[in-house]
Amino acid sequence: MRNRLRYGMVGGGKGAFIGAVHRRAIALEETAELTAGCFSSREEVNKETGRFYGVAEDRIYSSYAEMAQKEAAREDGIDFVSIVTPNHTHYEVAKAFLEAGIHVACEKPLCFTIEQGLELEKLAEKNGLLFAVTYTYTGYSMVKLARELIEKGEIGEIVNVNAEYLQEWLIDEIGGGAQTTTKLSVWRTDPEKSGISNCVGDIGTHIEDTVAYMTGMHPRRVAAVLDNYGMELELNANILVEYENGAHGVYSCSQVCAGHLNGLVIRIFGSKGAIEWVQEAPDRLLVTKKGEAQQIYCRGTGYVSGRASETNHIPSGHPEGLTYAFANIYHSFMSAVCKTINGEALEKEDRDYPNIHDGIQGVRFVKAVIDSGSMDSSWTEV
Amino acid sequence: MRNRLRYGMVGGGKGAFIGAVHRRAIALEETAELTAGCFSSREEVNKETGRFYGVAEDRIYSSYAEMAQKEAAREDGIDFVSIVTPNHTHYEVAKAFLEAGIHVACEKPLCFTIEQGLELEKLAEKNGLLFAVTYTYTGYSMVKLARELIEKGEIGEIVNVNAEYLQEWLIDEIGGGAQTTTKLSVWRTDPEKSGISNCVGDIGTHIEDTVAYMTGMHPRRVAAVLDNYGMELELNANILVEYENGAHGVYSCSQVCAGHLNGLVIRIFGSKGAIEWVQEAPDRLLVTKKGEAQQIYCRGTGYVSGRASETNHIPSGHPEGLTYAFANIYHSFMSAVCKTINGEALEKEDRDYPNIHDGIQGVRFVKAVIDSGSMDSSWTEV
Amino acid sequence: MRNRLRYGMVGGGKGAFIGAVHRRAIALEETAELTAGCFSSREEVNKETGRFYGVAEDRIYSSYAEMAQKEAAREDGIDFVSIVTPNHTHYEVAKAFLEAGIHVACEKPLCFTIEQGLELEKLAEKNGLLFAVTYTYTGYSMVKLARELIEKGEIGEIVNVNAEYLQEWLIDEIGGGAQTTTKLSVWRTDPEKSGISNCVGDIGTHIEDTVAYMTGMHPRRVAAVLDNYGMELELNANILVEYENGAHGVYSCSQVCAGHLNGLVIRIFGSKGAIEWVQEAPDRLLVTKKGEAQQIYCRGTGYVSGRASETNHIPSGHPEGLTYAFANIYHSFMSAVCKTINGEALEKEDRDYPNIHDGIQGVRFVKAVIDSGSMDSSWTEV
Amino acid sequence: MRNRLRYGMVGGGKGAFIGAVHRRAIALEETAELTAGCFSSREEVNKETGRFYGVAEDRIYSSYAEMAQKEAAREDGIDFVSIVTPNHTHYEVAKAFLEAGIHVACEKPLCFTIEQGLELEKLAEKNGLLFAVTYTYTGYSMVKLARELIEKGEIGEIVNVNAEYLQEWLIDEIGGGAQTTTKLSVWRTDPEKSGISNCVGDIGTHIEDTVAYMTGMHPRRVAAVLDNYGMELELNANILVEYENGAHGVYSCSQVCAGHLNGLVIRIFGSKGAIEWVQEAPDRLLVTKKGEAQQIYCRGTGYVSGRASETNHIPSGHPEGLTYAFANIYHSFMSAVCKTINGEALEKEDRDYPNIHDGIQGVRFVKAVIDSGSMDSSWTEV
Repeated sequence: MRNRLRYGMVGGGKGAFIGAVHRRAIALEETAELTAGCFSSREEVNKETGRFYGVAEDRIYSSYAEMAQKEAAREDGIDFVSIVTPNHTHYEVAKAFLEAGIHVACEKPLCFTIEQGLELEKLAEKNGLLFAVTYTYTGYSMVKLARELIEKGEIGEIVNVNAEYLQEWLIDEIGGGAQTTTKLSVWRTDPEKSGISNCVGDIGTHIEDTVAYMTGMHPRRVAAVLDNYGMELELNANILVEYENGAHGVYSCSQVCAGHLNGLVIRIFGSKGAIEWVQEAPDRLLVTKKGEAQQIYCRGTGYVSGRASETNHIPSGHPEGLTYAFANIYHSFMSAVCKTINGEALEKEDRDYPNIHDGIQGVRFVKAVIDSGSMDSSWTEV
Repeated sequence: MRNRLRYGMVGGGKGAFIGAVHRRAIALEETAELTAGCFSSREEVNKETGRFYGVAEDRIYSSYAEMAQKEAAREDGIDFVSIVTPNHTHYEVAKAFLEAGIHVACEKPLCFTIEQGLELEKLAEKNGLLFAVTYTYTGYSMVKLARELIEKGEIGEIVNVNAEYLQEWLIDEIGGGAQTTTKLSVWRTDPEKSGISNCVGDIGTHIEDTVAYMTGMHPRRVAAVLDNYGMELELNANILVEYENGAHGVYSCSQVCAGHLNGLVIRIFGSKGAIEWVQEAPDRLLVTKKGEAQQIYCRGTGYVSGRASETNHIPSGHPEGLTYAFANIYHSFMSAVCKTINGEALEKEDRDYPNIHDGIQGVRFVKAVIDSGSMDSSWTEV
Repeated sequence: MRNRLRYGMVGGGKGAFIGAVHRRAIALEETAELTAGCFSSREEVNKETGRFYGVAEDRIYSSYAEMAQKEAAREDGIDFVSIVTPNHTHYEVAKAFLEAGIHVACEKPLCFTIEQGLELEKLAEKNGLLFAVTYTYTGYSMVKLARELIEKGEIGEIVNVNAEYLQEWLIDEIGGGAQTTTKLSVWRTDPEKSGISNCVGDIGTHIEDTVAYMTGMHPRRVAAVLDNYGMELELNANILVEYENGAHGVYSCSQVCAGHLNGLVIRIFGSKGAIEWVQEAPDRLLVTKKGEAQQIYCRGTGYVSGRASETNHIPSGHPEGLTYAFANIYHSFMSAVCKTINGEALEKEDRDYPNIHDGIQGVRFVKAVIDSGSMDSSWTEV
Repeated sequence: MRNRLRYGMVGGGKGAFIGAVHRRAIALEETAELTAGCFSSREEVNKETGRFYGVAEDRIYSSYAEMAQKEAAREDGIDFVSIVTPNHTHYEVAKAFLEAGIHVACEKPLCFTIEQGLELEKLAEKNGLLFAVTYTYTGYSMVKLARELIEKGEIGEIVNVNAEYLQEWLIDEIGGGAQTTTKLSVWRTDPEKSGISNCVGDIGTHIEDTVAYMTGMHPRRVAAVLDNYGMELELNANILVEYENGAHGVYSCSQVCAGHLNGLVIRIFGSKGAIEWVQEAPDRLLVTKKGEAQQIYCRGTGYVSGRASETNHIPSGHPEGLTYAFANIYHSFMSAVCKTINGEALEKEDRDYPNIHDGIQGVRFVKAVIDSGSMDSSWTEV
């Protein structure tokens, strides 16, 4: 029976942001070791990264395809791969590892088209493989608490949703100046590499995913107005949402809102109360029950139970931060991988990570929003 | 030369909320006296109110029409009238006083149809009369500061607006229960008395007015989705907005959002910065300049100048509250009335009150939103 | 039976801050009229102020002594006087009106020595007169709620108090520069006119009074460290407090804390919970019950009852501000005056204003703190 | 030249809180491996923990003394040890490793008496060893920013400090009930194991250390009032502070303040401005410059430079949390260890960790506070 795992990474050369987050999140869990990788297309960076992390020389691969094949062939091959490459490569890399029979954790977005998503889904199912898409924010304890309070009916039937994800980092793109201001923004604003969408695909999709995780509700249709401000892809989107149960909501996402750093704010309004969660103060959940004073629930306290309690790592009042949210996702995913390898049955908590269906839902949502935007904000089915 | 005024009131019998606010706002200004009134259709309340405030017996009128005529005929007649009756009577009462040649301050909404609004406008112009519509929130000092900072270009060109006005007080109406929960809600949810709209007409219109005051921008068209939750009129509205300059925004208003008491929040995003104002903390204005830390501007401080400084009444850190916002509106209006009577020219600050054009704009906005809502959220011209 | 009152004012010439606050607070209550006054030692200002407020020519007095005598002699003389003169004159002015048999509302501090206070107290008792000392902050609804929750035992036995009153407006006095920065600061930093204390007498005393109002607890002894920063009187004080029940606390007051405008913050910790109130957000009260999430109680809501509900004036979410706190104090005081005149018995709510005993307690507290400061922070009995 | 390190751990058996924090903080840095340990006095836990982390069987030691000797004797022995045992054992464990010539990182408090501290200091110096005492909070980026802004004179000369560290977790100890409520509280309230102090030694010392780090100022003397509420050691302390430059301040620490989880709040007031930092929102620093609006500096933004920028790990708006603060401390310490081993000179940033002098200062501070408390709050030299 295994209780520790071996994993590989594609992408995540030294200095790359998201790769480090994944690696550190896995490190916090203390149950898996980095044993193989194809960290960079620049061979020097690739080697240097692998050596730095103590990866054996013959398991630092120059191509992900080779890595998938050779690791699959080893007896002590990796148990899963973390894919943290640029967005436009997720599909092909994921496909290679699924074909090789290796479980996959992939940074979002899953891919660029619904067809690609369905193909990956089919492949994973066929090969009996697990597939996580790391929509980070559902990993936070207090988001899990929100989900459970809503499930229990604490705020009644949901009647309205007001959610936003505002950032400021691309404000200098307004007007479409040739010179982009940050390295990161280069590929994000290049349609070839970022797909049909910039802002909605990058951050708007987190709104959809986090709301869906909390409420179980997906948009039936959307009506969106997009602003490109002279760039090829949108930097700002305001979106009306209609859910399957007939309730409505509004999602706003933007990368040009001065004063907002990583402002994901979710507010769920029900017939008996309301819930509000703010990513920049993630250890708190504002809960209002009709006719009562608003309450500030805090992570790690005695009155917080369920998954929020299970995923608590540090005493209350000591901020955990984003890396623990990632770690919580990896915890469930790695537990599921471990049990699958051991032939054990999965518990509900082992499934508490965003999976390929969530990934496909994200692709659908982005497409519907962009389509609506191009049709003068007509309602568009998701 | 006059420096004090006489005013009359229609509505505002003892115990009525909005009448007291108007009376107290005028009292804070210390420059006008209540000298006539038709306070209630219940004669006893009418008499009792008038006597309580020291109004002479023969100037406590049983009908507003009689009041308009008799006051107009007196040499020491009232200089202006405050109309604080239920919404559906604003038009007729205002008309009577305009016809009698008396300046008017009228609680919002101005009236129910655009035609009525245009008629009142014409009448006021013909008779050389001033007409205030008391959209309260533009009276706050920090809203005036926002306006001036935006005028000066401190946040650049406006590219996005995100504004909301959320309340919780009608949450029990969800499901359309026959029994309404509060006295106030009775007429507000009765289409005969509240017109074509409930929530948008009551509070959504404040969003439009406050944003317009701050930015000078009016919506060119709107796309709205409304929720009635089983009632005759809407309790919730999410609205996409397109301004004349092509920028977009989103307005949300609701009376069923638990945890929100009087949550008017205005956020204006520009190409060089952003401004945020929250009605429940009205003495602060959040100002972010691109590339700098967010700043919390406070009322009454040395670095605040212009109209915000002129309309400051109490030292910084000592909350002024809503009544002073009302007082600021009355201050400008009464100053304008006084100068008009004296034959003096009006300064810019004398015109710093919401007038009949703002009132008409409000009626147009509400109609467009309701029309869009009834046409499956089609873009509708304002 | 009287239901309206006549009042006079000493001090409060046009442009004076605190006089206007008193006048407006009384105006909000709508039950008393300004009918006499000695508004300024500058005759022109005195006359102009009196005329502006419609005071009859023969009741605009050049001296407060004359005013006290003449008003006492009239059949329609004033029912009470509001004293809003500089601090060093409170004692003599109050004495004159008490001797004339007129009820007194006096701005704080009551006087400069305990002996003066006891003399005024005796005089008031002898003549059967009411005496309010306008410690503003106990007038706020949510302070009243704090008092009632504590009285009911909601936070158990009080074990610790942490309170502060921080301002920034005298920061330029640091170093004792000859030139003072504001007009207001001139007399406040002049020992002849401000007594033995600057900062503690001006604002520290509000901490003592507000805590005492909330908890019923007065300091038994204090140990204080004072900072003058080169000025004659202190600008900053940190004070250890021991209450009669043996519990301890700490009070900090300062006029040199950048970023703090009028930062009165009271935190009461008990064996079963805690309460926090912040003057700059006065409509909220933070209540924590042991083992539960912190709650944000808001003024004007359905779950707030008792005096906090009785003293509510505007719907929840619409900020009331400082003037209403003042009005609440005047409401109780004027109700008590009215009933006393009518020979009616006083109810508990009629006594809900800071009285001469609170004023004397303030004088005692300031003296003990200053004494302790001058004895290297030795514990000093209050 | 080494660029990776080997470390051992004493204490930190599976399930122990603080050991996991240290391990994870080191893991985030990605430059050291756990290669030896004596994790628990319970042999089973010791073995299980070592195996779980992949420590070789012969390097899982039953006694720390054996570990120190054997590791010192190996060529591939550990480079440093992390001591995360109960407080009363820190001294002896640290001594053993220093004697063996191994660098030490020790959880606070360093030890229980000043003599012990000085002995360890002498030993470290003699053997040329580095010694970190993990006062966590100085590891936060924004605390580093505060230090640099103050060093640069941005807030002028410091004139007042107001700092607190409030928790609620021992509120049930009030009254001295025999049954303690949590496992953690057992040894903390046992004088044999926790030394002369509970609350001040546990959290009050963090106030002293964090303020000293930010300002460079240490207390010259203190006057403290302590509350035991029926327990053997104090649960609450209010402390007047006088610094070497004559400025004053107040420190409050408590474990019985309902509503406060881990409420370390530091406010530094200077002649030109002020700085405020709140541990529960660690990515922000409130900065006020005299005469200007308060600013909210955020971690990871373009306008933040120096050490705060160097120690930034995740993009702004994505909360880093406590573990990164720990990691920053380990980063400097491990860099210093690495360079020392390599014979390289240390840079300023390599010394940016709390060292043995800070540890001794903490012991001195706690002793002075407790002494003052036992002498009726007399001023006591630190």
